[in-house]
Amino acid sequence: MYPVSLEWRDNALHLLDQRILPHTIAYLTYHDHHAVAEAIRTMVVRGAPAIGAAAAYGLALAAQHSPATTPADLLAELRAAGATLKAARPTAVNLFWAVDTVLARVSAADSVAAMRVAALNAAHAVAEEDRWANRQMGLHALPLIPDTALAITHCNAGGLATVDYGTAVGVIRAAHEHGKHISVLVDETRPRLQGAKLTAFELRELGIPHQVIVDGASGHFMRTRKVDFCVVGCDRVAANGDTANKIGTYNLALAAKAHGVPFYVAAPTSTIDLTLPHGDAIHIEERDPDEVRMVGAEPITAAGVLAANPAFDVTPAAYITAFITEFGVVYPPFADGLRAVVAQAQQRRAGA
Amino acid sequence: MYPVSLEWRDNALHLLDQRILPHTIAYLTYHDHHAVAEAIRTMVVRGAPAIGAAAAYGLALAAQHSPATTPADLLAELRAAGATLKAARPTAVNLFWAVDTVLARVSAADSVAAMRVAALNAAHAVAEEDRWANRQMGLHALPLIPDTALAITHCNAGGLATVDYGTAVGVIRAAHEHGKHISVLVDETRPRLQGAKLTAFELRELGIPHQVIVDGASGHFMRTRKVDFCVVGCDRVAANGDTANKIGTYNLALAAKAHGVPFYVAAPTSTIDLTLPHGDAIHIEERDPDEVRMVGAEPITAAGVLAANPAFDVTPAAYITAFITEFGVVYPPFADGLRAVVAQAQQRRAGA
Repeated sequence: MYPVSLEWRDNALHLLDQRILPHTIAYLTYHDHHAVAEAIRTMVVRGAPAIGAAAAYGLALAAQHSPATTPADLLAELRAAGATLKAARPTAVNLFWAVDTVLARVSAADSVAAMRVAALNAAHAVAEEDRWANRQMGLHALPLIPDTALAITHCNAGGLATVDYGTAVGVIRAAHEHGKHISVLVDETRPRLQGAKLTAFELRELGIPHQVIVDGASGHFMRTRKVDFCVVGCDRVAANGDTANKIGTYNLALAAKAHGVPFYVAAPTSTIDLTLPHGDAIHIEERDPDEVRMVGAEPITAAGVLAANPAFDVTPAAYITAFITEFGVVYPPFADGLRAVVAQAQQRRAGA
Repeated sequence: MYPVSLEWRDNALHLLDQRILPHTIAYLTYHDHHAVAEAIRTMVVRGAPAIGAAAAYGLALAAQHSPATTPADLLAELRAAGATLKAARPTAVNLFWAVDTVLARVSAADSVAAMRVAALNAAHAVAEEDRWANRQMGLHALPLIPDTALAITHCNAGGLATVDYGTAVGVIRAAHEHGKHISVLVDETRPRLQGAKLTAFELRELGIPHQVIVDGASGHFMRTRKVDFCVVGCDRVAANGDTANKIGTYNLALAAKAHGVPFYVAAPTSTIDLTLPHGDAIHIEERDPDEVRMVGAEPITAAGVLAANPAFDVTPAAYITAFITEFGVVYPPFADGLRAVVAQAQQRRAGA
């Protein structure tokens, strides 16, 4: 089995250092929300759902270690801590959702001690909801997947990108666990190679047949082999279905559209942002150009060569066949369906 | 200025070792066609036109060092040498064309001494035709390019991929030399990173504004900025216009089509193969999966992870706006136009 992405143990958050996978498996221990924010920024932890859970535990740490003696002081501190955590990465909305979820639970408590307990319980609930949602998505996707299927996925939307099981990889592994003969072409996903380093590692551990391909090869394989579907995760879904995900997702969707290959987005409701009408409103993080100019420690370009490094792209809703959510599959037109599953999620949380 | 890809000097072929660019500039010296074939296979020299010229000089070396004492023996030896050279890489047709061109010139000579001279002269003619063709393509393309333009190119179809000046990069640099404000987004071109390593290096040396991007980002830039055109080189063009080029070209063409961005192929007539009716007849080289699994000396995947590494893809003619050839721009439907420019090339060579 591959290692878990994050764990709360001994009153501390333990994050798998994903920057050194797959060659080295090592955990870093966090007692402080500033350090958690830095871990999110530098991609020790990555993947929208895992980032959300890490931020939730970051707030729990802030609550635990705060010197505040009144509920008002503690809440003010936690709001500041939440702002620090939210600023770590701008595109994935789970981070914002998780912070706001924890803050809401904390504000309902009426003593400092109760607020500390509420923060940790809320973080556990965020993590537990992710575990549950991923398995539900896998089950809802089963009818979409042929008994023998070739899939393409991009980036890592697996167990490592979540608290457990995975979103897009969860869809693949649920099919595998239910006896379908599924094999996967894995976009290596430059610049940070999460497909080659993480998704392929997970699939190897799960015993699911796979081949890593360069990101430019997806169209070639669709043209020359029968590809049954694409499935990707997402960082933020706008109200109309426009979807931000790792750079390269849109190129994959363009190839899928041209070849009539279904293009599925595994989207826990925590990644759906109904406050944004469409994808152009999603802020796209620009990261250090050296992520493009170097691979590991090796510079690949000549000195003085310039590079651009948008970390995400937006795939317009028209290129998406369906969203796979923990409350079922949402087909176009997406606006009503997305609103409905978000409402179901809110009801479930209110009942929990 | 960047270094020349190949040079005939002191009765030997000198090849720039492109495997260690852009960090190290070093030449390897060849006296033997077997070693030249190996240099082609291992990509010391790469780029369809440069491979063709290297193979032509490889035959000249074979002629020079042959112990044959009769024209018949020498011709038999050169045919075997030609077969060895052709077997080095299967997709680019320039290699085949260059070998056949030299063999035809050699067969017309009537003594061993004359055949040796003919082989070297034919190799020089292949190289000189490439220099001339590249500059002609640059001139023919000028009317296609706005005075201020943002282009995307893939792989390296520059001076390093040719004897001099470049095909796709030649189109860009001709525009630059004629005072147009052209800037270039350079697909890094995994797995071997010829865009990041070679094209960006050339553009930096030429003073042409550029940014390296990951191959998955082209659609994002077309969606969010005004991209005026794409231009790529090619390894083999079938009679109907279907075009084999570096893996990733087809994905770029798909993005261009979806965004209404003109997609130009810079195609010297030596890359047009009228014997193939369409692109499915083009043999696509599969290279070592370790080119995907490693970057330089660094493994990027876990042990036991599998990869697929097709070196080229085929872009169907319907995705190509026009071919830029040394005899002018060829628009759809391509069959007649491609036949016409190949006929012009044959006439020009017959007159030379």
